[in-house]
Parts: sequence; C-alpha cells; structure tokens
Amino acid sequence: MLKINHYVDIKTLTMEQKRDYVDRHSAFVHCEKTAKKGQKFAVTVKVGDEYSHPDDFDHYIAYVQLFNGEILVAQATFTPATVFGAGNKGNVEVTFNVVLDKKAKFTAVAYCTKHGLWESDPVEVEIVE
Amino acid sequence: MLKINHYVDIKTLTMEQKRDYVDRHSAFVHCEKTAKKGQKFAVTVKVGDEYSHPDDFDHYIAYVQLFNGEILVAQATFTPATVFGAGNKGNVEVTFNVVLDKKAKFTAVAYCTKHGLWESDPVEVEIVE
Amino acid sequence: MLKINHYVDIKTLTMEQKRDYVDRHSAFVHCEKTAKKGQKFAVTVKVGDEYSHPDDFDHYIAYVQLFNGEILVAQATFTPATVFGAGNKGNVEVTFNVVLDKKAKFTAVAYCTKHGLWESDPVEVEIVE
Amino acid sequence: MLKINHYVDIKTLTMEQKRDYVDRHSAFVHCEKTAKKGQKFAVTVKVGDEYSHPDDFDHYIAYVQLFNGEILVAQATFTPATVFGAGNKGNVEVTFNVVLDKKAKFTAVAYCTKHGLWESDPVEVEIVE
Repeated sequence: MLKINHYVDIKTLTMEQKRDYVDRHSAFVHCEKTAKKGQKFAVTVKVGDEYSHPDDFDHYIAYVQLFNGEILVAQATFTPATVFGAGNKGNVEVTFNVVLDKKAKFTAVAYCTKHGLWESDPVEVEIVE
Repeated sequence: MLKINHYVDIKTLTMEQKRDYVDRHSAFVHCEKTAKKGQKFAVTVKVGDEYSHPDDFDHYIAYVQLFNGEILVAQATFTPATVFGAGNKGNVEVTFNVVLDKKAKFTAVAYCTKHGLWESDPVEVEIVE
Repeated sequence: MLKINHYVDIKTLTMEQKRDYVDRHSAFVHCEKTAKKGQKFAVTVKVGDEYSHPDDFDHYIAYVQLFNGEILVAQATFTPATVFGAGNKGNVEVTFNVVLDKKAKFTAVAYCTKHGLWESDPVEVEIVE
Repeated sequence: MLKINHYVDIKTLTMEQKRDYVDRHSAFVHCEKTAKKGQKFAVTVKVGDEYSHPDDFDHYIAYVQLFNGEILVAQATFTPATVFGAGNKGNVEVTFNVVLDKKAKFTAVAYCTKHGLWESDPVEVEIVE
C-alpha cells in the first residue's frame, strides 16, 4: 500500500535531522475556526513550519490537495521554481478561498517527488450566520 | 484553433449582460509591483472583479494557471463547491507564493466548463535586493 | 485521517449492491509483467472491472494517479462527460506510456467526487534487456 | 499574450534543427474518424511524431490536455521520468477513453517546461449508431 506519512510534533523528536525531515514535509491547514455562511473563507495549505523544503529540479513539492471530509476541494500543482530561473528555496504556501454553507473538516495532502505523500492533521470549521 | 478569450475593460461595454459575462470570466493577477530577491512573494489569481461566476455542477471554473513568461508556475484545479454541499457561489481566488531571483511577468489563465479559456493581462514585477 | 478504500475481491461479497459499489470504484493497473529497458511501456489505469461508474455532474471519477513505488508517474484529471454533452456513462480508462530503466511497482489511486479515494493492488514489472 | 505554438508540416522546413524542434514539441490527436454512440472511444494524445522530446529534470512535457471544441475533456500531468530513476527519453503518449453521444472536434495542447504551449491540429469525429 502507498505509504501516507503523518505529521509528528517535532518537539517529541530528539534528532535534529529527523525534526528537519518531518517538519519540512508536513502539510498544515491554516484558517479561522469559524466561517460566515455563504461568504468567501480563506484556507491556506502550507508545507513546512519551522524548516523549509528545497524547490530543486529533482526534489520538490509537486502538488498539494485540500480535502473537506473525504471530498477534494482543490489541488495545486507546481513545476519546480528552478525551472523558471528562480532560486531553489521552496516554502510552498497556497491560499484557496471556499464558500461554505455548513461546517467543514479540512485535511491537506502534500506530495514530495522524493519522499512521497504527507497528510496534515484535520482542522474543523464551524459556520456562523 | 482553441479560442483564447481576453479581458476587455468593461467600462467600454454598453450592454449589462456583456459586462457581466466578460467580467465574471476574466482572470486577474494581483500582486505588488516589486518583490524582494529570494523571499516569498504572494501572487493572487482571481476570476471575476465586480461580478461573480457561478460554482454550479455543470458550470464552474475548473482550473486557473499562473505563468511567468511562457513558463507555468502553478495550476490550481477545482471540483465545483456544489459537490461538497457548499453553495453555488464561486469567486475563485487563489494565492500562490513564489520565490523570485529575477524580474517576472505573470499571466493567468482561467478555464470555465461552459465558456472555455480566458487569459489575463500580464503583470510585471521588478526585483529589489 | 483520510480514508483510503482498497479493492476487495468481489467474489467474497454476498450483497449485489456492495459488489457493484466496490467494483465500480476500484482502480486497476493493467500492463505486461515485463518491460524492455529504455522502451515505451504501456500502463493502463482502469476504474471498475465488471461494473461501470456513472459520469454525472455531481458524481464522477475526478482523477486517477499512477505511482511507481511512492513516486507519482502521472495524474489524469477529468471533467464529467455530461459537461460536454456526452452521456453519463463513465468507465474511466487511461493508458500512460512509461520508459523504464529498472523494475517498477505500480499502484493506481482513483478519486470519486462522492466516495473518495480508492487504491489499487500493486503490480510489479521486471525489466528485460 | 501567451504564445501558443502550432504544428507546422516539417516537410516544409529546410533546417534539420528546426524540424526536430517543431516535431518533438507538437501535440497530435490520434483516433478513429467515427465513434459508436454511447460506447468507449479511444483518443490518444502524442507529443512528437518522428522525433522524441527529452524527459529531463529541467526540460520535460509537464502536461497534455484534450479539448472537445472549447471544452476540456481531460488533462494528464507528469513528473519527469528522471525523478523516479527511469531514463531521460520522453515520448509522451496518453490514451483517454471518451463516451460520445454526438460528434466531436478534438484538439490537444502540450506544455514543455522550456518551450511553452503547443496546440495540435483539430481532429473531427462523426457518430454512428
């Protein structure tokens, strides 16, 4: 079966190399805890928190996905920045805007061309009128 | 040949229906005019300015692309919000973050499942150290 | 965590409704058992075997992915055929061509807009000169 | 405006380098001239005819799209084969299967990470009962 890696709180990891590896690959969902019904609501998917992932020809975050429950909201696909003459620093961060009518549970998935699939912790959003 | 629609300043259009049609399909690139070399730089692709595009089962913006010159930076692909029980209001807006080493010229393309391809005006960005 | 559904041999299922549900969502990898080094090698990803999945506005296979080990080879993304006036019958089937230098282990993932992610059994391919 | 390159019959080109450049980037639609109504119909998108495009880290065909009229049928997105240890020979070729209820006009678009967008000649398909 395809391995799906999950975020681990890096404070619980003793080796610096392991902390770097886990942090820079982990996908995070950042958004407010409540959304106004029927209005644009910003949901940011970010790869890496304290550490940054390279954006090199052969080693880059090729896509991130945002799910609401089991349903895909959006997917962003990237070519490595090195291809268009930018540097090799990554820090993938994408903000989608979703119009919600009922509560949501967002999960992000990131895919690294060397280290496979990484799934975020879920984030729940309540609706206010 | 595939038709590529282009933005027209809607102030020059006399019919309200035409203004709505053109505006809600047009892709726009929003970003600062200068970026700091080697640092994250936010580039937003937005579909529609004063009018809003539906996000219905059979009529939605299925993807947007961001190009730097002729080179693709990123593509975001969507399922219609109606699929996951959200409303049928669209307003596609996605913010990518790019790390630039040299000046860029961004163009966005949006694709509507009923009205095809729409290309934005280009936006140029200078680099400051 | 996102639920990843897996294929179950439908002969082991007693309820017809369940057989239909599992079969029509399951992704299958079809290819030869051996590939010639450095030559095009056809790998087909098919969703459903004896049963067929609808291709309706709100219920369709939105993408399939082909992995070699943990690494993504290709992804095909679809708009429902109903959008362009075709019928609502699905039967997603895509043939990618890969040039292999060493043995491969292919896994396919299919995504249904109502029933989420489905992962195939892996298929191993040996290389002959 | 984004440049959309179009296929030119390479027999009309006198320089070998130019023939190679045009041929290996051009997208072609291959399919039968008639399709049976409501049945699976294979449509192949191939990049390059007599010449082959590299599949290198920084120079590869990142996606192909298949349009029916102005409407997108499917898009296949690739990571370069070099990423998963395969060789650097390309020859992108993808076969989609479409269920048609009425006549179609297929156009393919290919995108090269160095040389941008390439659009095929259209191919028309009639329906027989």
